[in-house]
Amino acid sequence: MNSADLGLPVDVPSTALFTDHYELTMLQAALHAGTADRRSVFEVFTRRLPEGRRYGVVAGTGRVLDAVENFRFDAGVLGFLRERKVVDEATLAWLADYRFSGDIWGYPEGEVYFPGSPLLRVEGSFAECVLLETVILSILNHDSAIAAAASRMASAAGDRPLIEMGARRTHELAAVAASRAAYVGGFATTSDLAAGFRYGIPTVGTSAHAFTLLHDSERDAFRAQVDSLGEGTTLLVDTYDVKEAVRTAVEIAGPKLGAVRIDSGDLLLVAHRVRQQLDELGAADTKIVVTSDLDEYAIASLAAAPVDAYGVGTQLVTGSGHPTCSMVYKLVARAESADPKAPLVPVAKKSAGGKTSVGGRKWAARRLDRDGVAEAEVVGTGAVPPELADRQLLVELVRGGDVVAREPLDTVRERHIAARDALPLSATQLSKGESVIPTEYV
Amino acid sequence: MNSADLGLPVDVPSTALFTDHYELTMLQAALHAGTADRRSVFEVFTRRLPEGRRYGVVAGTGRVLDAVENFRFDAGVLGFLRERKVVDEATLAWLADYRFSGDIWGYPEGEVYFPGSPLLRVEGSFAECVLLETVILSILNHDSAIAAAASRMASAAGDRPLIEMGARRTHELAAVAASRAAYVGGFATTSDLAAGFRYGIPTVGTSAHAFTLLHDSERDAFRAQVDSLGEGTTLLVDTYDVKEAVRTAVEIAGPKLGAVRIDSGDLLLVAHRVRQQLDELGAADTKIVVTSDLDEYAIASLAAAPVDAYGVGTQLVTGSGHPTCSMVYKLVARAESADPKAPLVPVAKKSAGGKTSVGGRKWAARRLDRDGVAEAEVVGTGAVPPELADRQLLVELVRGGDVVAREPLDTVRERHIAARDALPLSATQLSKGESVIPTEYV
Repeated sequence: MNSADLGLPVDVPSTALFTDHYELTMLQAALHAGTADRRSVFEVFTRRLPEGRRYGVVAGTGRVLDAVENFRFDAGVLGFLRERKVVDEATLAWLADYRFSGDIWGYPEGEVYFPGSPLLRVEGSFAECVLLETVILSILNHDSAIAAAASRMASAAGDRPLIEMGARRTHELAAVAASRAAYVGGFATTSDLAAGFRYGIPTVGTSAHAFTLLHDSERDAFRAQVDSLGEGTTLLVDTYDVKEAVRTAVEIAGPKLGAVRIDSGDLLLVAHRVRQQLDELGAADTKIVVTSDLDEYAIASLAAAPVDAYGVGTQLVTGSGHPTCSMVYKLVARAESADPKAPLVPVAKKSAGGKTSVGGRKWAARRLDRDGVAEAEVVGTGAVPPELADRQLLVELVRGGDVVAREPLDTVRERHIAARDALPLSATQLSKGESVIPTEYV
Repeated sequence: MNSADLGLPVDVPSTALFTDHYELTMLQAALHAGTADRRSVFEVFTRRLPEGRRYGVVAGTGRVLDAVENFRFDAGVLGFLRERKVVDEATLAWLADYRFSGDIWGYPEGEVYFPGSPLLRVEGSFAECVLLETVILSILNHDSAIAAAASRMASAAGDRPLIEMGARRTHELAAVAASRAAYVGGFATTSDLAAGFRYGIPTVGTSAHAFTLLHDSERDAFRAQVDSLGEGTTLLVDTYDVKEAVRTAVEIAGPKLGAVRIDSGDLLLVAHRVRQQLDELGAADTKIVVTSDLDEYAIASLAAAPVDAYGVGTQLVTGSGHPTCSMVYKLVARAESADPKAPLVPVAKKSAGGKTSVGGRKWAARRLDRDGVAEAEVVGTGAVPPELADRQLLVELVRGGDVVAREPLDTVRERHIAARDALPLSATQLSKGESVIPTEYV
């Protein structure tokens, strides 16, 4: 496979080490006990949405498919496992031949989800499925958290474009995945060159305060920038005095100056003053970009301000208060024996600790009302009721180990917009609330 | 260089794309204006600690050194920048020869820091320094956030070991860096095999609920695990009924059973009951590991419980409420011209927006009281007062582009423990408060 398909802007020999130690010791014990080949069904779901959130957004599925395809134990990895005595020789021999050969179904990327939604269903032998737990959860928990925040910001921003610029606030490779998830959630562009390289997301950026400070005067800095980047550039106007900077900017770039950026202060007030000043200077088409510690609430509060675009960093890449989801990967059914024809038995944890779950291989469908608006997430085992047959949510992603559902990121992005638009109107309220539709178990 | 030194368990051709688009457009404009070669000093600092935190922990420095060393623009990267018209041909030619040739000083990794501490100082031409902003901040903001949470957890845990097991709750490569930062902050082991592979951190793990559910009975599962992993293993006892599970566990493994793990329920209550039961069964040396949604407060609340080790996931990798730091990379001084002998001029943003900073190349020292306890973080420009000369915090990390300060992770970990121990006692209070020592500007 092409290592460029890994979802990373790097060559990665394998995703097999993105795995918790216990996945391998379980494998060893199951191989030894003769239970490793029992056909098994694992499901990814979440018991709750983050507090106050009304819907979740599935993101990272494309990266999961890449990770599964590339999950191999090469000589270097096997040597490490041997040296550290993680597992025995019989298990190492088994791992050397590992290649996922099972089936994966899941919610298509960009779909919305609710508590209990079976987001991903991985089916195969216990051995081949259990190993994938950690990397699948890492990807979905991270990417879905970012996409959910992005989706709220995008609905708050309405038609105004959002720029992702959070790379400096998170791990350098998490940043690339965050750009991707933000794009799925509705962002238009990113500052992160690696995200542009890997995913083709449009990248943007012009200058920082350091550029102004490098020069002997703000005027010199603006002139240097316009000379090099053209009149369509975006000038940063809050290094010294905003009013003076705007005057200088239009003087140097002319009335066709592309945009000014404001990165501090009371954005509502400053944006109004800058708009008025730009208009008075004849720069009526010059746009205003704001970029200071924005989140979905700040974006919403600027709805009436003369702002043309928002740049969002910290709050996007940290999921706006919820940097991870609580998705889990649970065994929900397994065969009674290693016989491939043995029937599946539903299983579930049953202790009093509150972390119980529903056993059995599940289907899910979204029931709509007469106006086509979602009214319930219906989750069940067994036969799908005929009236929900064409509203089913899970699609085939991997068949017999082969990925069958790659798709362009723009398709995913459009799917998300459509899915969000089909939710009740209260879905995009920013105030805290419950899931916008209930989950019903059949 | 060895790509294994990148801080990633992967081969990465370059770190140069972990960069915001605007760093390159600033470079182009400065090259065009003749200001790119002005000698410049950039500093990394934070204006505040996360709300309620009393100290910060520097982590990621080792990864920064790797990233700087490997920051190169190869043909693939240059081709991308050309195709997307990020910068012009003259700038691409400059980038093709890029190699950082300046100097970096910084707080040694593992040190504590406070608002205004000049954590890292990067000096060279504007052009060569400005490019490093994004990747340096990504690494330090992420890793230091995790290390700060780890340090609080470690002081709450006292002598009991902490196991890092958050890989599934964060981006798969952020997880590796998080394991490293947790180790710096005082964690003992990790579940993440990639962190073991890359950084030599001891990895641990035995089994999950899925392993119990795979088998026809809990008894079968325990027998399979003990047969394969030995009596010293850790059995997970909360899949069905804890009391019955503990009885079965000791029956099968014998009184030398290594440990039992409890992953749900009222851990204080359950730990007491399990300890009593284990003792009654003669398994007095069998340890109890708890692992359910722990943070530093939950760890502290279990101080009086018969618990031998804590496993921490979500709250560790998300920085226990603060998944990023607010470190910035600011130009604080630059030459008046491109002449290498031109004097440096202090510079700083001055607008009314609140994001102001202190110009000038800084030193920092930690002043101690008579008992050797830290009493102030002293930050200044110009000459260092003689009485603080041997308490200076910045050390040389890169000299003329060459890394001069690599060190083993255990050295960093010990440094952190020593630095924390030298703070006033109130540093490790978990309740919200101010910085435990003030920052004084000289």
